[in-house]
Amino acid sequence: VRRCAAGVDVGGTKILGTVVDRAGEVRSHIRVPTPAAGEAVLDAVAGVVLQLWEAEPGAAGGAVGVGMPGLVDRAGVLRYAPNLPGVIDLDVAGGLARRLRSVGATAHVVVDNDATCATAAEHALGAAGGAGDAVMVTFGTGIGGGLVASGAIVHGSGNFAGEIGHMVVDAGGPVCACGGRGCWEVHASGRALGRQAREAAAAGRAPGVLERAGSVEAVQGEHVVEAALAGDAGAVAILERFGEWVAVGLANIANMLDPEVVVLGGGIVRAGPALLDPVQRAFMAAVEGARHRPVMRIVPALFGSEAGAVGAGVLALEAGD
Amino acid sequence: VRRCAAGVDVGGTKILGTVVDRAGEVRSHIRVPTPAAGEAVLDAVAGVVLQLWEAEPGAAGGAVGVGMPGLVDRAGVLRYAPNLPGVIDLDVAGGLARRLRSVGATAHVVVDNDATCATAAEHALGAAGGAGDAVMVTFGTGIGGGLVASGAIVHGSGNFAGEIGHMVVDAGGPVCACGGRGCWEVHASGRALGRQAREAAAAGRAPGVLERAGSVEAVQGEHVVEAALAGDAGAVAILERFGEWVAVGLANIANMLDPEVVVLGGGIVRAGPALLDPVQRAFMAAVEGARHRPVMRIVPALFGSEAGAVGAGVLALEAGD
Repeated sequence: VRRCAAGVDVGGTKILGTVVDRAGEVRSHIRVPTPAAGEAVLDAVAGVVLQLWEAEPGAAGGAVGVGMPGLVDRAGVLRYAPNLPGVIDLDVAGGLARRLRSVGATAHVVVDNDATCATAAEHALGAAGGAGDAVMVTFGTGIGGGLVASGAIVHGSGNFAGEIGHMVVDAGGPVCACGGRGCWEVHASGRALGRQAREAAAAGRAPGVLERAGSVEAVQGEHVVEAALAGDAGAVAILERFGEWVAVGLANIANMLDPEVVVLGGGIVRAGPALLDPVQRAFMAAVEGARHRPVMRIVPALFGSEAGAVGAGVLALEAGD
Repeated sequence: VRRCAAGVDVGGTKILGTVVDRAGEVRSHIRVPTPAAGEAVLDAVAGVVLQLWEAEPGAAGGAVGVGMPGLVDRAGVLRYAPNLPGVIDLDVAGGLARRLRSVGATAHVVVDNDATCATAAEHALGAAGGAGDAVMVTFGTGIGGGLVASGAIVHGSGNFAGEIGHMVVDAGGPVCACGGRGCWEVHASGRALGRQAREAAAAGRAPGVLERAGSVEAVQGEHVVEAALAGDAGAVAILERFGEWVAVGLANIANMLDPEVVVLGGGIVRAGPALLDPVQRAFMAAVEGARHRPVMRIVPALFGSEAGAVGAGVLALEAGD
């Protein structure tokens, strides 16, 4: 049994790599830009793995985990990746293993969805703390997620479980990037927060946010977070309403899965109570029979932007057991 | 290890009892009305169990499973039952065991949500056929459900998983019996089908349905089912639109859990292809990356109104293992 593994997370713009050991320690941090074409992505991932192995000889030649932004099947093939244009049916597991073999390494490669990886990190080492039933929700450009039932990650029949961002919460509502209408991420993603903030700024309801961004067009979710942390009333009001949309989806997930803890990840969670308090209030109002249930905890993630890479390493370690 | 167990399903109006053996055979069928008060319900359940034991001596004194319409915690206490007015925090497991002890029996009593029981029946003996990942959805007055992940029923942290009827799919939409707005069951339950059919009948769009019911006020979902089975165009159009609402919720569940099979139960499923075909079409359009996934099967339940009682017996048998 190996004591550490390399974990790599492929995002739409950057690739992050790290090494995780069984004690939960995270070592080495490598970051490279994501190339445009599929095979070039695999070349870059292989390069990151070799750099990690050089930096951490204890991981060299051992298990490698990779998180990919899209639907990854059980064989480690990326079937569909809406944020990696042109990448489809890419054999990540096979292609990476081949590249590593070509330099003499016989690493075992595990590939999964990036949000599933982040869930594994929070469950094994982070805010979900080994809970029997837990949900992780990551707010970014879209909304990603991962589910834990009876102590194990829920993979689903084709390994596609946890695609919670496209849960319809507002049928007939605004059009989503996926082509559907009223998906949760239309209202509750980081991108949605930016749009709502631009609307508020344009209407003169968020001067503190506007001041930080410089112009209405430049307003992003992060400006709302910064202004809210500074106590700006306009930003707090934006998060209050945004939090209600977050709660709608969380309540749906809670009604379905009854987790003991829900972990929220992504940059907007830095807003702290200005976001989490309205989420908690609206969540309790929306869960069926909430008065009759144990309280579900809603907590911020422990890992930040490294959650996917750390979790990929965790999954690789677990697969090696 | 016992070879058979008694299963009892408590509904809003009737209590059904049966005996299930490990080969999947279902024997004896008892039906009594549901009394109004909580303790009287337990008296009636105990009476049904004693009748079953008399009819099937092989089950006498053995495991007993009970399905209840509401939130049942891990200790077998019914915390909340919206369709049993006045029944709250009823210790079903303890109260039933005490009643059976008073006649000299030391039966092991298992209590769970009725839809979870129905899911156990379909998974162990019915249309889900032992699938690794499956979902059961029951369309009645409301919508009930049960989830299977990695071959096991998903219970959740407090045993409240599977409350899918109150998943919000139409935020800000019509008010639900739960007090929320736009819950799935507002649009896609058997009761919702009846309401939609009355609207269609009142507007002159469903003469075949109206003829079967006698008056607009008398129109129920079953009249739509009967008319659709006879090929009535108005009824088929009602089911077409209703099926789209069914599909919205099924797609949400599928995006979240990626089941290989979805089992639909409840009287309206008798409509067959007139319901299932539009559901399947709208479902494929709503699942993220549907082209890139294996096809999820949507199938009618094998068990009818006895699913809950049979499944309660299945859970009792499994608990005895």
